[in-house]
Amino acid sequence: MTYCVGLRLDRGIIFASDTRTNAGVDNVATFGKMHVWERVGDRVIVLMSAGNLAFTQSIVSLLNERIDLGPDEHSLMTVNTMFQAARLIGETIRELRRNERDMIEQNPSLFSASFILGGQIAGDSHRLFQIYQEGNFIEATKDNIYFQIGEHKYGKPILDRVAKPDMRMGVAAKLVLISFDSTLRSNLSVGMPIDLLIYRKDELKVGEERRIEENDPYFRKLSIAWSEAIRDAFAHIDEYGEDEGGIEILKTRGPDTIPKPTEEAVPVQATAGWIKEVDG
Amino acid sequence: MTYCVGLRLDRGIIFASDTRTNAGVDNVATFGKMHVWERVGDRVIVLMSAGNLAFTQSIVSLLNERIDLGPDEHSLMTVNTMFQAARLIGETIRELRRNERDMIEQNPSLFSASFILGGQIAGDSHRLFQIYQEGNFIEATKDNIYFQIGEHKYGKPILDRVAKPDMRMGVAAKLVLISFDSTLRSNLSVGMPIDLLIYRKDELKVGEERRIEENDPYFRKLSIAWSEAIRDAFAHIDEYGEDEGGIEILKTRGPDTIPKPTEEAVPVQATAGWIKEVDG
Repeated sequence: MTYCVGLRLDRGIIFASDTRTNAGVDNVATFGKMHVWERVGDRVIVLMSAGNLAFTQSIVSLLNERIDLGPDEHSLMTVNTMFQAARLIGETIRELRRNERDMIEQNPSLFSASFILGGQIAGDSHRLFQIYQEGNFIEATKDNIYFQIGEHKYGKPILDRVAKPDMRMGVAAKLVLISFDSTLRSNLSVGMPIDLLIYRKDELKVGEERRIEENDPYFRKLSIAWSEAIRDAFAHIDEYGEDEGGIEILKTRGPDTIPKPTEEAVPVQATAGWIKEVDG
Repeated sequence: MTYCVGLRLDRGIIFASDTRTNAGVDNVATFGKMHVWERVGDRVIVLMSAGNLAFTQSIVSLLNERIDLGPDEHSLMTVNTMFQAARLIGETIRELRRNERDMIEQNPSLFSASFILGGQIAGDSHRLFQIYQEGNFIEATKDNIYFQIGEHKYGKPILDRVAKPDMRMGVAAKLVLISFDSTLRSNLSVGMPIDLLIYRKDELKVGEERRIEENDPYFRKLSIAWSEAIRDAFAHIDEYGEDEGGIEILKTRGPDTIPKPTEEAVPVQATAGWIKEVDG
């Protein structure tokens, strides 16, 4: 399986992908799922892929072959906007699927894939797209600032709660890594290392590109701190039944029901009377 | 969609299920997915189901018809252990699938379902099972104390981090509700209200059974408190690049590089000397 996230902020884009590709538990392989095309000062284009590796690698190979044909060819290095880049990739997907129509009918899963595309081309803004296996695509907006592909559900709740367009890049990178941490804990088929790429708006070069290994000190610290913080947060929320009479409901049906001392129910006057009697 | 959790603790079992059944966005219905058979002092059997409603309701109807045949019939009210109850339900599933073999071949999804079974029968311990649509089943152990069916991924990370067999029941109920909160936030097809049932070990009667509505004060408080706690926990973790030189890497490539004030690097003696100079 795969997990990839692209998060578009006012200040730039964070990309992260896992690197695990497995064709069964005894055949675990590591392949990069993040592809970067960069010409400093002109463009940074990042493509992440999930799905059948043979299919996604073919797409990347076709994109690279077009680039090799030179500056007159319509390619990722000659398109003028990120929207055109998304269209070009969509067309490439369709082309490959057209050629393999017979194979797709026999085994559709061999040609299932999804992509996250992001980056910036000089003269255009920094943009983020999700591209489907049919070649169509959607773009991130102010309301929907991230895309996930692959095993996305475990890492979604934290993104939904925290992601904001005006986050600083370091905070956003932390968020993406926590989203990965949740996924890695719950699904063995998504594996370290994580490829992380930070693109800062208008720089037109890769800000930082790093492979975060299992023993990475920041990631280990983050993972432990997040576990502790979650347990701590959990411990500080009232338990079910602790207030608003809930505990009453719980106890009335329990075998360890402690009958309320009747004194509490007796009106003050009566108690006072009883005390008087004894006293008298 | 559906989300159900069964959590087996040393002190009992927590059951929770959502109640949303939808066949399209303009046709949202609420059906109970939690079925309880109780004979106080003798047995409590709880069955939760996910999957095709026509199929899961048929299973429950067949189980009830057997009970109606009286005390000589092998039914949920006459089995001696929870293991036998799980086997009986497994057989009932297989019986129904055998009868509908032609339909299943045409449309397998009509007969897809999964079940969580739990409870206690006098003389047996409190036990929890997950039953598959093939009629086979697995039992919760000390190492694997919960089962989820339906839309389970969003609510799994918190269970993985926090669930422990020696939890108190009120804490466990809180955990299950937080797991629901995460699922409800991320998936619109899982909906309130939530059916919650608490069974305390050796009581042989339902401890508490409650439908938690959207405006339930405890659930609303929990939902808000958890959101705040998560954001707070997130804010307190070092951001990416803040330590171990990471910030250096980030900043060296950034356009907004702020050179460190050199004053900070000046040894204390020098500062003291400067103060002295002024004073003198």
